[in-house]
Amino acid sequence: MTLIPADDAFAETLAARLPEGTLRRAEPRHLEEPRGRWRGSSQWVALPRSAEDVSEIVRACNAARVGIVPLAGGTGLVGGQVAPDAPAPLLVSMERMTAIRAVYPQENVLVAEAGAVLADVQAAAQKAERLFALSLASEGTARIGGLLSTNAGGVNVLRYGNARDQVLGLEAVLPDGSLWHGLKRLRKDNTGYDLRHLLIGAEGTLGLITAASLKLAPIPAATGTALFTVTDPAAALDLLALARDQLGEGISAFELISRQGLDFLSETVPDVRQPWDSPPDWCVLIELGLARGLDPAGALETLFASAHEAGLVSDALVAQSEQQRSDFWAIRERIPEANRAIGAISSHDISVPLGAIPEFIARGTPAIAALGDFRINCFGHLGDGNLHYNVFPVPGRSREDHVDQREDIKRTVHDLVHEMGGSVSAEHGIGRLKVDDLERYGDPAKLAAMRAIKAALDPNGIMNPGAVLRQQALR
Amino acid sequence: MTLIPADDAFAETLAARLPEGTLRRAEPRHLEEPRGRWRGSSQWVALPRSAEDVSEIVRACNAARVGIVPLAGGTGLVGGQVAPDAPAPLLVSMERMTAIRAVYPQENVLVAEAGAVLADVQAAAQKAERLFALSLASEGTARIGGLLSTNAGGVNVLRYGNARDQVLGLEAVLPDGSLWHGLKRLRKDNTGYDLRHLLIGAEGTLGLITAASLKLAPIPAATGTALFTVTDPAAALDLLALARDQLGEGISAFELISRQGLDFLSETVPDVRQPWDSPPDWCVLIELGLARGLDPAGALETLFASAHEAGLVSDALVAQSEQQRSDFWAIRERIPEANRAIGAISSHDISVPLGAIPEFIARGTPAIAALGDFRINCFGHLGDGNLHYNVFPVPGRSREDHVDQREDIKRTVHDLVHEMGGSVSAEHGIGRLKVDDLERYGDPAKLAAMRAIKAALDPNGIMNPGAVLRQQALR
Repeated sequence: MTLIPADDAFAETLAARLPEGTLRRAEPRHLEEPRGRWRGSSQWVALPRSAEDVSEIVRACNAARVGIVPLAGGTGLVGGQVAPDAPAPLLVSMERMTAIRAVYPQENVLVAEAGAVLADVQAAAQKAERLFALSLASEGTARIGGLLSTNAGGVNVLRYGNARDQVLGLEAVLPDGSLWHGLKRLRKDNTGYDLRHLLIGAEGTLGLITAASLKLAPIPAATGTALFTVTDPAAALDLLALARDQLGEGISAFELISRQGLDFLSETVPDVRQPWDSPPDWCVLIELGLARGLDPAGALETLFASAHEAGLVSDALVAQSEQQRSDFWAIRERIPEANRAIGAISSHDISVPLGAIPEFIARGTPAIAALGDFRINCFGHLGDGNLHYNVFPVPGRSREDHVDQREDIKRTVHDLVHEMGGSVSAEHGIGRLKVDDLERYGDPAKLAAMRAIKAALDPNGIMNPGAVLRQQALR
Repeated sequence: MTLIPADDAFAETLAARLPEGTLRRAEPRHLEEPRGRWRGSSQWVALPRSAEDVSEIVRACNAARVGIVPLAGGTGLVGGQVAPDAPAPLLVSMERMTAIRAVYPQENVLVAEAGAVLADVQAAAQKAERLFALSLASEGTARIGGLLSTNAGGVNVLRYGNARDQVLGLEAVLPDGSLWHGLKRLRKDNTGYDLRHLLIGAEGTLGLITAASLKLAPIPAATGTALFTVTDPAAALDLLALARDQLGEGISAFELISRQGLDFLSETVPDVRQPWDSPPDWCVLIELGLARGLDPAGALETLFASAHEAGLVSDALVAQSEQQRSDFWAIRERIPEANRAIGAISSHDISVPLGAIPEFIARGTPAIAALGDFRINCFGHLGDGNLHYNVFPVPGRSREDHVDQREDIKRTVHDLVHEMGGSVSAEHGIGRLKVDDLERYGDPAKLAAMRAIKAALDPNGIMNPGAVLRQQALR
């Protein structure tokens, strides 16, 4: 089955079936992705205003065998939002479907359309005195549809789970154009296969999410934020265990930062305030969200005292103001910016079982050193076993000097992750960047099941063609 | 595609490919289900000891087009575990695969085989000073494989989620006999479609779960249990909102009990101690699990004081000992036993959006009264929007007197639930009992997708034939 391009003739026919102004020439912003590794080939973008519009679009594309690439915030890092090769697909951007359809504070539920920006959803929840827990660096741009389609992670996963864990129901258009009215607000519903969890994380290859009913949480009564200097990654893990013993589910975030990351920040983003005289080799950003009646500052002091006694930590800085809290978080959240300024040869979004993290870091360093002289910035969501493990040139050299080694570096890291029972894509997904990796490391029975499901739900292969699964492999 | 029976000839061939003693004549216990509404027709049961055995069995059945009914604890209430009609399927009981394969306290993970009894998994977690949060009345018998295949609910869903929310990874045999090695222990893994959530809740129709890696939680530092007498269901809901404001995520259970349930208990299970002089019309069993530094008894008193001031509650009994806590829970947990002794005409496991519960109860009573003179016992997991809504004859009459009205009653309740955006199977699943309901109330786009997925993964229709989806509808 070959797809045909979304050319002017197709666009004209489709436009006649849709409200005026729904179809437009694609703009440059629709064809770019943050890494700049691909550029989309599409000529046309549809800007639907309703799920019914989306249904009409998908039905027409399916009948004509025209591919569709869904667009949300465009912040994905694996090329899921661009199809660089012919035949050019139709882009379907959710940028006009941004409504918060309803908020049910008593039920802890909010219903948002797929184009709603994460920060706006967070604000709507906040206005109802509730928390929408999904939070990540791109929250000012990323949209709900993309966040769910990629099952986004972020900084609150430790406590609240991934994007999929925030969803009670979906409204979505399936590849044949049928509209699934699945916007339930139920905590329990065992009526058949969980289509919701199948679409979440499918990266637009099994349908197009148009709206979601989302779980809200109570806002913790008090928060506390601190930077703990830890001896090494193993000590960080022991600190996490100790914190859990003392604070149960009160730990909202637990992020690992290395000296390398701090040095990159000093070099390239000097406006980020670093609170140490001499930057530590390893530190942890810990955030608590506690129930009424508990004192986060006291809890952090108690935690430090026992961790210090156990030889895990040497220093702790507890944020004394909202400004200081924001400064601490800037250290963590602006590391990716510093990384981009330095220019990574190869970046890896990996996870391993929590207990295996120290071994992974310990084995990773010599394995990379065996390939040459490099710098490693290893940081991220330690509490979730999810590390961003990025490899950089040494000073005086550039990423371009190492283009030939990129594959070897990636292979070395991913082989080690795979051997340790980990994942080669913890939170960013497969997109187009990691199709090879999925084929290499994926479980064969699971891959066969995925291909069968894709072929069953999207027999013409129109939905986000080439993302997640190689297009040819479906036949 | 017609299935062939698992007859003596097939059993003999299969037995030769399996370890000695794996295949046996089915015993009566393998052919019964708790409601007594069906009796299985199978002659043979396989008792595998390993995932490889299961793989061999499924492969052989698929090649020969013999149906399979997986057996776990057999406590399901919708006939998912019995295929009453010819051709007789092969039963595959997980009763020999009961190992707790590993416990990782530092990671809060436990790996159990599908035949492990829930109470044993809870005990293994407890031994590691962790909590396995899934908890329900049948936990002494129910097995992990069945609990996951039906996405069981229970009393801790409010805080910890359904069975699916306790699962990090699965090992399962797919309908072609391939073994999916998906026992990951990762909190984040975005490598392709979420097969885990597809198999969970599929009731054995898409594959056979052989083991699971399960999430553990910290044990709350202190628990508190109380019975609050509430004005009505709306007051119960306001009490829940108040409790959430004061206690955040510290509420582990929030169960509604009606006067009718208490009367049934007095009549049929008199050894259950009821702590009131005169039983209340409506009461709520509330359980708190709080972090270190908080006092559950004090929190319950504060909650009562503010709820009393708001006119929501008239009385509260706070458990003063483990014995009293257990007595309080017995009131809630032995209601099903009382119901069986009275004999329901029709039982309904339904959920509605939380905010719609008072309206559902208010409209249900006259709707049932319009059909005749009945008693309603409405009770259950209010915090999840999940009620058990059971209709009984008045004294002096029996369920047999109302057999003709059963369908009308069920239809009345389910139509109302459906109209209110609810679910006609909140926690028990579809099995064979609710196949008609799923067809009637299910979203057409979702149903079509389910049938396509079933046909794609199980083209011969061997896995739990007739459960969830009508066998003919697949062709």
